Amino acid sequence: MTAKAPDQSPRRGPGRPRHETPSAEFLERRESIIDTALEVFKQRGYDSGSLDDVAAVLGLRKASLYYYVRSKAELLYFVFDRAINRALERLETLTSADESPRQRLEALIRHQVMVVSDDPSLFTVFFDQRPHHDGEYEAEIQKKERRYLRLYAQGVTDDAEAGVLTNIDPRYAAQLVLGMTNWTYKWFDPSRDDAEALADAAVQLVLGSSDVDGD
Amino acid sequence: MTAKAPDQSPRRGPGRPRHETPSAEFLERRESIIDTALEVFKQRGYDSGSLDDVAAVLGLRKASLYYYVRSKAELLYFVFDRAINRALERLETLTSADESPRQRLEALIRHQVMVVSDDPSLFTVFFDQRPHHDGEYEAEIQKKERRYLRLYAQGVTDDAEAGVLTNIDPRYAAQLVLGMTNWTYKWFDPSRDDAEALADAAVQLVLGSSDVDGD
Repeated sequence: MTAKAPDQSPRRGPGRPRHETPSAEFLERRESIIDTALEVFKQRGYDSGSLDDVAAVLGLRKASLYYYVRSKAELLYFVFDRAINRALERLETLTSADESPRQRLEALIRHQVMVVSDDPSLFTVFFDQRPHHDGEYEAEIQKKERRYLRLYAQGVTDDAEAGVLTNIDPRYAAQLVLGMTNWTYKWFDPSRDDAEALADAAVQLVLGSSDVDGD
Repeated sequence: MTAKAPDQSPRRGPGRPRHETPSAEFLERRESIIDTALEVFKQRGYDSGSLDDVAAVLGLRKASLYYYVRSKAELLYFVFDRAINRALERLETLTSADESPRQRLEALIRHQVMVVSDDPSLFTVFFDQRPHHDGEYEAEIQKKERRYLRLYAQGVTDDAEAGVLTNIDPRYAAQLVLGMTNWTYKWFDPSRDDAEALADAAVQLVLGSSDVDGD
């Protein structure tokens, strides 16, 4: 069989030709679709937000959108990938900064509270209801997630071992800090709760009565 | 239509007669089925453990099991209800005990770590993949869950306000403590991790350098 030109009807599955080497224009257009999708899903929920909603905001026909993303599951993959890339970039900056262990632990706690509280519904989908992506996509996301967790845990472990946390198994400390900050997506309501105040509280809970650097 | 005697084939839905006032014998038998189901699901996973597995362990035909529970979803409801009743009972004892605020906060942290680490896969289902129960069941579970959370949060809040945690919004403190302990179900592996050591670490993280009562 020869490859066919994409038709107008949405199709999924192995029959759809892949863009082996997508053009710069194609990628740029897709990036802006992902930007929009992030906003649309954040507003309308990742469950109920649809490709129709994204197409409408972009002023595209749904058929045109399908030229760039093959399904909502694929779009969610791109959205997760974008979110994890951003968070990973900030985490890398933060863990390589020239700070005291105490300052770095504080920064790690604040960072994770801000990442999760900025878009709790993203994490509901990411942590609990991740749609079934094909093997390649899922492997890619998991690779980045593992890298993120390793980097985060290493940061907490290093700070704990540098004496910021005493008498505490550094591996458990890392999981506890990740837990208290990640759990935010289960209850944080941006219309009621305050992310900065929560970050202050988390820092205070872990770093105790030493003064909190709020500025 | 008149009610029919239960037949041998499993049926779900509104057609199946309810036991309006189940006999003591019926309830007792069902309790032992729930005990077994808790063990079976804990061993085999809540996802893959089936009614067949439960029936096999009990030495019952599946058709007989259906006399007591109408579906896996219903059995899961009973399992959740049992788990939440037990945890609630211990929490009530603990919050009404005559202890110092510091001791109580420590007990609250330990309690939640032990509850979750004892059966992480139960909480994976409970928190993330709760099956759709009918309205009455779901309302009942949610009522108990809210009571549990209220009692837990009130305990942490009281202890925080009594001066155990300083400079920290008590409402956020309660969510952070619940988060660090509940998150356990996402990573705790009973074959690798140690629940007591994790509880020690959690107490130490929150209550800092004061000595940890391990005995």
